[in-house]
Amino acid sequence: MVSERYRKGLVEMRRHLGTPEADQYLAKINEISSEFAKVNVEFPFGELYPRDLLDDKTRELCAVTALTVLGHALPELRVHVKAALNCGASREEIVEVVTQMIAYCGFPAATNALLTVKESFEQIDAETMKD
Amino acid sequence: MVSERYRKGLVEMRRHLGTPEADQYLAKINEISSEFAKVNVEFPFGELYPRDLLDDKTRELCAVTALTVLGHALPELRVHVKAALNCGASREEIVEVVTQMIAYCGFPAATNALLTVKESFEQIDAETMKD
Amino acid sequence: MVSERYRKGLVEMRRHLGTPEADQYLAKINEISSEFAKVNVEFPFGELYPRDLLDDKTRELCAVTALTVLGHALPELRVHVKAALNCGASREEIVEVVTQMIAYCGFPAATNALLTVKESFEQIDAETMKD
Amino acid sequence: MVSERYRKGLVEMRRHLGTPEADQYLAKINEISSEFAKVNVEFPFGELYPRDLLDDKTRELCAVTALTVLGHALPELRVHVKAALNCGASREEIVEVVTQMIAYCGFPAATNALLTVKESFEQIDAETMKD
Amino acid sequence: MVSERYRKGLVEMRRHLGTPEADQYLAKINEISSEFAKVNVEFPFGELYPRDLLDDKTRELCAVTALTVLGHALPELRVHVKAALNCGASREEIVEVVTQMIAYCGFPAATNALLTVKESFEQIDAETMKD
Amino acid sequence: MVSERYRKGLVEMRRHLGTPEADQYLAKINEISSEFAKVNVEFPFGELYPRDLLDDKTRELCAVTALTVLGHALPELRVHVKAALNCGASREEIVEVVTQMIAYCGFPAATNALLTVKESFEQIDAETMKD
Repeated sequence: MVSERYRKGLVEMRRHLGTPEADQYLAKINEISSEFAKVNVEFPFGELYPRDLLDDKTRELCAVTALTVLGHALPELRVHVKAALNCGASREEIVEVVTQMIAYCGFPAATNALLTVKESFEQIDAETMKD
Repeated sequence: MVSERYRKGLVEMRRHLGTPEADQYLAKINEISSEFAKVNVEFPFGELYPRDLLDDKTRELCAVTALTVLGHALPELRVHVKAALNCGASREEIVEVVTQMIAYCGFPAATNALLTVKESFEQIDAETMKD
Repeated sequence: MVSERYRKGLVEMRRHLGTPEADQYLAKINEISSEFAKVNVEFPFGELYPRDLLDDKTRELCAVTALTVLGHALPELRVHVKAALNCGASREEIVEVVTQMIAYCGFPAATNALLTVKESFEQIDAETMKD
Repeated sequence: MVSERYRKGLVEMRRHLGTPEADQYLAKINEISSEFAKVNVEFPFGELYPRDLLDDKTRELCAVTALTVLGHALPELRVHVKAALNCGASREEIVEVVTQMIAYCGFPAATNALLTVKESFEQIDAETMKD
Repeated sequence: MVSERYRKGLVEMRRHLGTPEADQYLAKINEISSEFAKVNVEFPFGELYPRDLLDDKTRELCAVTALTVLGHALPELRVHVKAALNCGASREEIVEVVTQMIAYCGFPAATNALLTVKESFEQIDAETMKD
Repeated sequence: MVSERYRKGLVEMRRHLGTPEADQYLAKINEISSEFAKVNVEFPFGELYPRDLLDDKTRELCAVTALTVLGHALPELRVHVKAALNCGASREEIVEVVTQMIAYCGFPAATNALLTVKESFEQIDAETMKD
C-alpha cells in the first residue's frame, strides 16, 4: 500500500531521472532500507519537485549547482546530469553552470564536477551507440 | 588604468547587484585589498557572467542555490537575493529554490538561508518605504 | 486542513523542542514560507523522528553531533541543546558529545559549538531565574 | 617507549575497531608518518573515548552521525560501522541514524553514507561466510 | 597538577596567540569544559605545533589558510591573524594567503575571511592607539 | 590567439606542476570545456600565483593545506603534492602540514589527505625507478 505522495513522487522521479534509472536507483536503496527509499520518493519528488513555481529545467540546473558546490556528491551529480538533459537543458548549459560555480566553490570542487559531467556525457554517448 | 575586462565586469556587476550596492561592496573590499576587489570584478563578472549560455535570471537562481548550500555564505546570499530580483526572479521563485535545497543540504543550511532571504525582503521593503 | 503527518509531527516537535519553542520557530518560518514550515513539521518530525528504532535521547545527541560537525548550524544547535535536555540528556553528556567531535571536525567547529552550548545553558539558567 | 596514553588508547581503539582492524589501520598510517599514527591512538582513543560520560555504543552512533554528515569521510565510516556493531549497536540502529541525518545534511551525503553502510554489512557477511 | 605536555603547550600557545589572548581564550573555554580547554592546550599546542619541521610563520599562514577555507571559522581566524603577525608574517602576506584561497574555496568564503582580516587589523590598530 | 595572462599563467602552471603534468591536465579539461581550461590557466596561475608577496614553496604548502581541509579534493591534492616538491618543499614538510591540519579539520579529512600524500610519493618513486 503506497501513499498518494509516493505515487505522485514516483511519476515525477521517473520523468526527471528516466524510468529505468529511477527504478534501479530505488532498487539499490531498497536492498538496505525501504524507509530511506520511501522518503526519497515521497519527500523531494512527491512534495518539493512537483510544485509549479519553477520549471523542471531550472530545478535540474539548480540540482547540478548544488551537487557541484557540495563537493562530495559526484554520484548524485551523475544522476542529475542525465535528469537535466531529460528536462531540456543542453550539454552547454550544464557545463556553463559548473563553470559559473568556480566563483562560488573554487576550482577543486568545480573541476571534479566538470570531469564527472564529462564522464556522464561519455557514458550517455556509449549507451546511445549500443542502441 | 583599468583593463577591458574590469570595465566589462563592472557594468555586469552593477547590472546584477545594483549600482550603489556594487560600488559600496567594492569600496569595502578595496579598503583592505585592491587586488581582491579587482579580481572580484574581472573574473566572475568580467569573464564568467557575461557569457551568453545562461540568462541572468537563471545565473542568479544558481547563485542563490550555491550560497544556500554552502551554509557559511549568508552575507553573499543577501547580495544575490537582491541581484536575483534585479534580474527578474520573483520572491516566490527565490523562496522555492531555497526550499528545494532542503533535499540537497538538509534543513539547517536551508533554514538559515530562508531566514536570510526573509530579512533581505524586509530590508528591501523598508528601503522602498523610505523613498 | 492539516495532514495526519502534520498532526503527528507537531506533537513530536513540541515534545522535543518544547511547545512554545516549537510554535515560535514555526511562526517565524511561516512568515516567509508556509510550505517550508509544513515540510519541516511533516518530514523530520512526522516521519523520521517518531520511528521506534532509536530513543529520543540518542536522536538528540546525534542531532547535537550533526549540528556541531556542520559548522554553520549554530542557531539550530541552540534549539537542539534544549531538545536534548528535554529528552533526558544531561549537560555533561551534551558537552561530551561536542568534545568527542574535536576528533571528527577539528577544533574550530567544535569550539564554536561548545561556546554555543555554553550560551544555551546560560540562557536556560536566566529563564529559570525569572520564573 | 610508548606513553601511558598510547597504551590506554591502543586498548580502547582495538576494543572499538577490532584488534586486527586497528592494527592494520595503524600499520598503514605508520608507513607514511609515525607521528600521525601516534596521535591518532593517543588523542581520540587515549583521551577522548575512554571518558565515562558516554557509553561506547552512543559514542559510535555519534561517530556514524559525524562521518555521514561530513560527506567526504566514507572510508572512516566503513571503519566505524564495524566499530558500532562491536559496541552493541544493531544494523537497524546504524541505518536509522543515517536515515535521520537526511534532515541534517540532505539526501546526497546521507545516500552515499547509506550505500557505504550497505557495502560494510556485505563485507562483514562475506568474511563471516569464509570462517 | 598539569602534565608536561600542558606546560609545553601553554608556552607555545602564548607565544603564538599572545599571553593575555591565550589566557582569556582558555578562561572562556574553561567556564564550560575544563577537559576541552586541557586538550586544546595539550594536543595542538603541546604536540603538533612544537615540532621543528615547520617554522612558526609557515604554520600560522597554514592556519589562516585552513580557517579561510573552512568558511565557518571566522572567530578562530581572528585569533590566528594576530598569531600570524606575532610569528613574523606581514599584513600583506596574510591578505595574500586569503586572496590565493579564492581559487580553492571560491569568493564567498574568501570574502568573509578577507573582511574578518580587515576587522582584525582595525582592532589591533585601535588597541595600539589606546596604549 | 591567447592572452598575455594565459601565456604568463601557462609558464607559472608548468613551473609549479611540471610541464607534462600541466599539459595533460589542461588537455583533459579542454576535452569538455575550453573556457574552463582557459580560466584555470589565466586566473589562479596568471593572476594570483605570480604575485611576489609569497614564495612558491609557501604558496604550495598553503595549497596542500586547503586541499586537505576541503576533504573532497584528493585528486587536486595529488597534483599539488608534486607541485610542492617541485617548489622546494620536502616530503617531511608536506606530511607535517597535513598532520597540523588534524587540529583544524579533524582526523577523517586529515587521514584521507595523508594516505593520498602517501600514494603520491609511491607513484613518484615508481616513476623515478622506471627512468
